[in-house]
Amino acid sequence: MSTITALDTFDIRFPTSLELDGSDAMNPDPDYSAAYLIVRTDAADGHEGHGFVFTIGRGNEVEAAAIDALRRQIVGRDAEELLDDMGATWKMLVHDSQLRWLGPEKGVMHMAIGAVVNALWDLKAKRAGLPLWDLLSRMGPEEIVSLVDFRYLTDALTPDQALEILRRAEPGRAERRARLLAEGYPAYTTTPGWLGYSDEKLALLAKEAVADGYTQIKLKVGASLEDDIRRVRLARETVGPDVRIAVDANQRWDVGQAVAWMGQLAPFDIAWIEEPTSPDDILGHAEIARRLAPLPVATGEHVHNRIMFKQLLQAGAIEVLQLDATRVAGINENIAILLLAAAFGVRVCPHAGGVGLCEAVQHLSMFDFVAVSGAIEGRMIEFVDHLHEHFVTPVDVHGGRYWPPSAPGAGSEMARETLADYSFPDGPVWAPSPLPLTSQH
Amino acid sequence: MSTITALDTFDIRFPTSLELDGSDAMNPDPDYSAAYLIVRTDAADGHEGHGFVFTIGRGNEVEAAAIDALRRQIVGRDAEELLDDMGATWKMLVHDSQLRWLGPEKGVMHMAIGAVVNALWDLKAKRAGLPLWDLLSRMGPEEIVSLVDFRYLTDALTPDQALEILRRAEPGRAERRARLLAEGYPAYTTTPGWLGYSDEKLALLAKEAVADGYTQIKLKVGASLEDDIRRVRLARETVGPDVRIAVDANQRWDVGQAVAWMGQLAPFDIAWIEEPTSPDDILGHAEIARRLAPLPVATGEHVHNRIMFKQLLQAGAIEVLQLDATRVAGINENIAILLLAAAFGVRVCPHAGGVGLCEAVQHLSMFDFVAVSGAIEGRMIEFVDHLHEHFVTPVDVHGGRYWPPSAPGAGSEMARETLADYSFPDGPVWAPSPLPLTSQH
Repeated sequence: MSTITALDTFDIRFPTSLELDGSDAMNPDPDYSAAYLIVRTDAADGHEGHGFVFTIGRGNEVEAAAIDALRRQIVGRDAEELLDDMGATWKMLVHDSQLRWLGPEKGVMHMAIGAVVNALWDLKAKRAGLPLWDLLSRMGPEEIVSLVDFRYLTDALTPDQALEILRRAEPGRAERRARLLAEGYPAYTTTPGWLGYSDEKLALLAKEAVADGYTQIKLKVGASLEDDIRRVRLARETVGPDVRIAVDANQRWDVGQAVAWMGQLAPFDIAWIEEPTSPDDILGHAEIARRLAPLPVATGEHVHNRIMFKQLLQAGAIEVLQLDATRVAGINENIAILLLAAAFGVRVCPHAGGVGLCEAVQHLSMFDFVAVSGAIEGRMIEFVDHLHEHFVTPVDVHGGRYWPPSAPGAGSEMARETLADYSFPDGPVWAPSPLPLTSQH
Repeated sequence: MSTITALDTFDIRFPTSLELDGSDAMNPDPDYSAAYLIVRTDAADGHEGHGFVFTIGRGNEVEAAAIDALRRQIVGRDAEELLDDMGATWKMLVHDSQLRWLGPEKGVMHMAIGAVVNALWDLKAKRAGLPLWDLLSRMGPEEIVSLVDFRYLTDALTPDQALEILRRAEPGRAERRARLLAEGYPAYTTTPGWLGYSDEKLALLAKEAVADGYTQIKLKVGASLEDDIRRVRLARETVGPDVRIAVDANQRWDVGQAVAWMGQLAPFDIAWIEEPTSPDDILGHAEIARRLAPLPVATGEHVHNRIMFKQLLQAGAIEVLQLDATRVAGINENIAILLLAAAFGVRVCPHAGGVGLCEAVQHLSMFDFVAVSGAIEGRMIEFVDHLHEHFVTPVDVHGGRYWPPSAPGAGSEMARETLADYSFPDGPVWAPSPLPLTSQH
């Protein structure tokens, strides 16, 4: 028996806008940030649960305040009770009748719930002595189904249908687990493609990516058609015909614009068009997909819950589902999304990059391969080589592949020095002078 | 020339859970609340802009923190520059590249933007010496169109199409304005229908509603089918065949459940089924509408932006559009929603009640009647007789109708004593003892 004794929050920001890393058509100057929390217990094992929401700067304090608002539901509770029935814990957090008004199930409050849920999963995996992907992959079909809230899903996926998917995957688990450990999980890289980079830097990084073993790169597009044509042509000339090039518009277009713009880029053999329009526009994505077929449409990093993913799948709007580790309400909701994708036979290629997203989503893709879809063909996890040094167990990506983590936990724990140094606005990175600046941002 | 000198926020909460006013199938014990702000300038006129987000208790502090996060974009700015081009001001707030990540355009951050936008409209209307509905109704079609961001809308509504709608309404403006002043705008009442009320209280309040001139009442449903059948039958027997009875499930059901449950209530001649399922489930609403036709489906109070409303209309999912004053990004986005409704020929019946929602939405419906749709048949504004005394210019509702406000402003200003007394957690209502309780909630 142990009790949760604390839920501590941190506002962590990295001054990435100075380098234009992460710049795209909608986000010209992000300061990659994390609204971060640590859950502590009075157990003798000393384990903590770490979780976070990735943001891009201003407003990170609002996200941290939302995590603070969940403290009363966690602190003082019996840790085993929360961790032993994570499905019930998820519902307790998501269905709080008063907090629910602030979404429902979307935006700042929903992401905060995700961070707390993920911190609890981190704690649960550390207690089990297993990396999260392995912990999940060892659960029985019934236990996995018990993690999922099927509310609003049953017209597309019932618990029984989910069970059937999981049972079908059960016999091959051991074989796929061995394959995963031996071969890793495919990655693609966005490193060459940020809008703020020069043509020279793009070509250099694209060449490096191929040399490093990547078989897909991704370029940001959507600010200037002329620039995009030049950059995509340059990338294609650099990587040759056998490396896939995806493009990402970061929601820049309306439906008609997306179709017209991509008509100009399609001749360069595009692997997918990502976020062509608003992530809320299910019918818009469906129309774009219909008019651009067979060019695949991808989205997901801003899709705010399982209900939206359900509809994107029902409408035939996406061929590539890009779940995100910190947009929805954590591991449980992402398991619902993996099950939906499996039910509709759609590829999952998680969004990553940012702060700690690579560390987090790898667990979901690996679990999906071992125990849910059982599929890996055409699937890959985004990789950006950025800020990993701030994590206690950074990803191991080499040869164009993610290698399964072995450290217990969810991969979400930042180094203590990072939590101190990058704390906003009072950490030394943000307040370097003896007279701290109070409002740089 | 004047400068915005302050944006002050307040966490205001009313202990409504003690009375079970506002109780429904998803919200058993709300404490009606407002994350509130006042914008001040150094102009000699002394006018202030007041705005708020309605919430139902816990998390109101998160919403207030989100409003705080917008201070840097408002304070120190030239007031005339912001107020003279409210379309540009809206875009400046909504398209902030870093804050946008927290939605985009949804949830806590989007509602906070709405509160700031509405406070600026309140200030603009006070400076003009006009109630907001009248200020908007005097604007030319081009000016109204300039208030709207058509991003993500153009596949359903272009600026030219919006102009055409507004120009078509122009010749009849004076006549409809006179009619509005003479006859008021129809209301319906939810007062009898809260789930927490006894059958006796339901019948008594329903009888009173008819005596007061209402031609529609609304009942909450969705917790128990047996109870719902009894309550709807009782209401029908009480009000007779000529008064409409709408029902509201507050998102309680999945698609199949909604169809089955409403099949049992339909024999009682239901005016509409409101929020049968998740507000995010556009395709679900469309399926429910198709299977329950001709029973009208209504939703909107939790529909988070114009892009979602666009799709609800494109999918033929709703016959009644229930916009909300504080869910979306303020007056500008609600004008976009009114234009979409007009383009699709769908009735607008705003959600109200809560804290100050009646005071706010009346301006939108009256503007819509005078200058946008020009229609009033079958349209009405929700009314709940609750907490109006806290506003400086409370609604005037009698004879089953809203009467056009004449006081300058948007109706959003609370009494000073209310801001002091109901401040959470330190106001005397929440901290009545000499030793203040720090965490009642």
